[in-house]
Amino acid sequence: MARIVMKFGGTSVGDIARIRNVAAHVKREFDAGHDVAVVVSAMSGETNRLVGLTRDIARVHDAREYDVVVSAGEQVSVGLLAMALQDIGVAARSWLGWQIPVKTSDVHGAARISNIDASAITALFEEKRVAVIAGFQGVSSAGRLTTLGRGGSDTSAVAVAAAINADRCDIYTDVDGVYTTDPRLVPQAGKLERISYEEMLEMASLGAKVLQTRSVELAMTRHVRLQVRSSFDAPDAPEPQNGLAGTLICNEDEIMEQEIVSGIAYARSEAKITLLGVADQPGIAARIFGPLADASINVDMIVQNVAADGAKTDVTFTVSQDELERTMDVIAQIREDIDCADVNTAPDMAKISIVGVGMRSHAGVAQKMFTVLADKGINIHVISTSEIKISVLIDSDYAELAVRALHSAYGLDDETVDA
Amino acid sequence: MARIVMKFGGTSVGDIARIRNVAAHVKREFDAGHDVAVVVSAMSGETNRLVGLTRDIARVHDAREYDVVVSAGEQVSVGLLAMALQDIGVAARSWLGWQIPVKTSDVHGAARISNIDASAITALFEEKRVAVIAGFQGVSSAGRLTTLGRGGSDTSAVAVAAAINADRCDIYTDVDGVYTTDPRLVPQAGKLERISYEEMLEMASLGAKVLQTRSVELAMTRHVRLQVRSSFDAPDAPEPQNGLAGTLICNEDEIMEQEIVSGIAYARSEAKITLLGVADQPGIAARIFGPLADASINVDMIVQNVAADGAKTDVTFTVSQDELERTMDVIAQIREDIDCADVNTAPDMAKISIVGVGMRSHAGVAQKMFTVLADKGINIHVISTSEIKISVLIDSDYAELAVRALHSAYGLDDETVDA
Repeated sequence: MARIVMKFGGTSVGDIARIRNVAAHVKREFDAGHDVAVVVSAMSGETNRLVGLTRDIARVHDAREYDVVVSAGEQVSVGLLAMALQDIGVAARSWLGWQIPVKTSDVHGAARISNIDASAITALFEEKRVAVIAGFQGVSSAGRLTTLGRGGSDTSAVAVAAAINADRCDIYTDVDGVYTTDPRLVPQAGKLERISYEEMLEMASLGAKVLQTRSVELAMTRHVRLQVRSSFDAPDAPEPQNGLAGTLICNEDEIMEQEIVSGIAYARSEAKITLLGVADQPGIAARIFGPLADASINVDMIVQNVAADGAKTDVTFTVSQDELERTMDVIAQIREDIDCADVNTAPDMAKISIVGVGMRSHAGVAQKMFTVLADKGINIHVISTSEIKISVLIDSDYAELAVRALHSAYGLDDETVDA
Repeated sequence: MARIVMKFGGTSVGDIARIRNVAAHVKREFDAGHDVAVVVSAMSGETNRLVGLTRDIARVHDAREYDVVVSAGEQVSVGLLAMALQDIGVAARSWLGWQIPVKTSDVHGAARISNIDASAITALFEEKRVAVIAGFQGVSSAGRLTTLGRGGSDTSAVAVAAAINADRCDIYTDVDGVYTTDPRLVPQAGKLERISYEEMLEMASLGAKVLQTRSVELAMTRHVRLQVRSSFDAPDAPEPQNGLAGTLICNEDEIMEQEIVSGIAYARSEAKITLLGVADQPGIAARIFGPLADASINVDMIVQNVAADGAKTDVTFTVSQDELERTMDVIAQIREDIDCADVNTAPDMAKISIVGVGMRSHAGVAQKMFTVLADKGINIHVISTSEIKISVLIDSDYAELAVRALHSAYGLDDETVDA
């Protein structure tokens, strides 16, 4: 017998039939004798509808009232799922954020969970009942409704799992796990059985949209074993031998045979900006990136090279293509201050990243990446590395070619799939 | 400066434009220096949509989960109205039932309010802010969401008014007041300036759908002065001289010149059943109406006459036409037990009632009613009276004729309206 949290997103509870399907998934785990807490999002489209109403009523929102309106969505889905469970003979009751309570900060619209009282949920387990918990919402110390921001239900689920000391937190979604790379791009991409928190964090922040970065961070800090699996699987399908229908995100030491590279991530729509001949003096970076941060522009890769004469330097960085225009406006304002001789921009770039905890203990991983790309005639504009990740910026046109070549070179191709 | 509660129903907050209109009504009262609490229903159609979802998910509901789902409707409208008020410069905040709290019994789906803590609302008044309160909902002693049953927002408004000692509770609706009779039937029907609680109760239970009977009862018990007025009036229209834009429902002693008859109510779709030659013995009524009550059949008028031979009696009663078939099923089961010789039914009847506290002190009011109907050749099947009401059952075909003749005979015709 285990204690598990099951989380279902908006698509999984999008209509009555899908809610019944979720109930069947829950019944399977409940019938297996597990303690089960279910965290659900609003029915798909509902949060957008409610957000739309708040936008229509007033241009400027009171974030506290915004939270009152949008948290109504999860309230509907928990009530309906509790009913659907009871209807198939599973004792269940719904819990709203304020009822548990899920205590949060008072940053309305983007609150952070500070504490979850587990006693009500575990008391329900004693009665052999399923707890159906509204994701995305909580209550501030002032007793007002709060929401965690878009995608916050993943974070709710992990926080509940930590609070009740769950053996596992299963995130049901519209894909059946985490892949070595995007299967739409590389048909030979394989589903990973396990991946470490650190790798998943890099994958998530690099554009693999399976999980919210924030929920992975929380799972890592609170030692919650996360599984990503599909809510489209038949609820009565036999569980696989290893007990994992999806991909388990866990501590490194739970992964027996660690690949050197676990996955390849990519992000298109990057833009590169190079400031040429900037005065090379202390504080210059702050004078460039301070104003960009003030304008809420998200800067990704940053590279600085000493220029030939030693008194000048070139600074290169990347931003999202959408923000290139605003970035150039900011640069125009500070250009004189930083004594910049010239500015180059390249708007159509892609970032390709290889991720793997194994590369810590293996030399030559980066060298192999550069060789593979060179062999394909692909020019590298910028390189950026972390302990478990190497990212390169290349022309966007070569993104697919690069991902496929690297996927094959690092031995990730699934041999059972025809290319 | 006064302290007032304003209540707006679903139609009044049916879309963004209508919510803005409500905000303008509230601003008028707020700008006049009043303490204002606003009670709102769900946007029209929303409660039906949510109820539909609960029906679709499971044939048999858990009433506690039903309340979780349907109370989401008011949550959305209070948040939106608070935003709309802030948008036009009126400081406001929303309150959900559990936040105030509005404590209720645990009869989910039809809970009764046991207590409202007024301190949070009056504290808001001190800060010169408007309280926007979700109607229809409360919280049980177990901390679960409850709802008051259909139309419960009127009751919420009256209960809030009682709790905060309001000078008046204005119910904004789609009519501009209470009329002497249905204006669709009698064009000369006039709007009443004032009507007593007792009269309003009779009118409401007799089919005038302006207010929920329950809210009028509560207003009477707790001495809350209720005003029915139209939410379709222009928010910036000048208030009339007497300060009453609609009809005030109040204590008798607030009504200076009491008419003998204040209004004429009617209900179609009544069915009459007569049990002939029933054994006239103690407990016979219980043996007839007990089984009908057990079958949840609502019996209205009851008349019993001693039969000619003294050992037998005839019992006549009315039910709604919709329930005639079920009623006859019950009668068939008990017929032998009550030793009933024969059963007559008349399915197309109408009940016409005259209502007025003045009839207590005036003789001949009933006689006049019977004479007027006789002059028109209308046959009276059943008569039923209370202290301030006389109801007669007639053939449905004569309903309009009877209402018009009585309206005129009791001097209620508005002379300024062309017939």
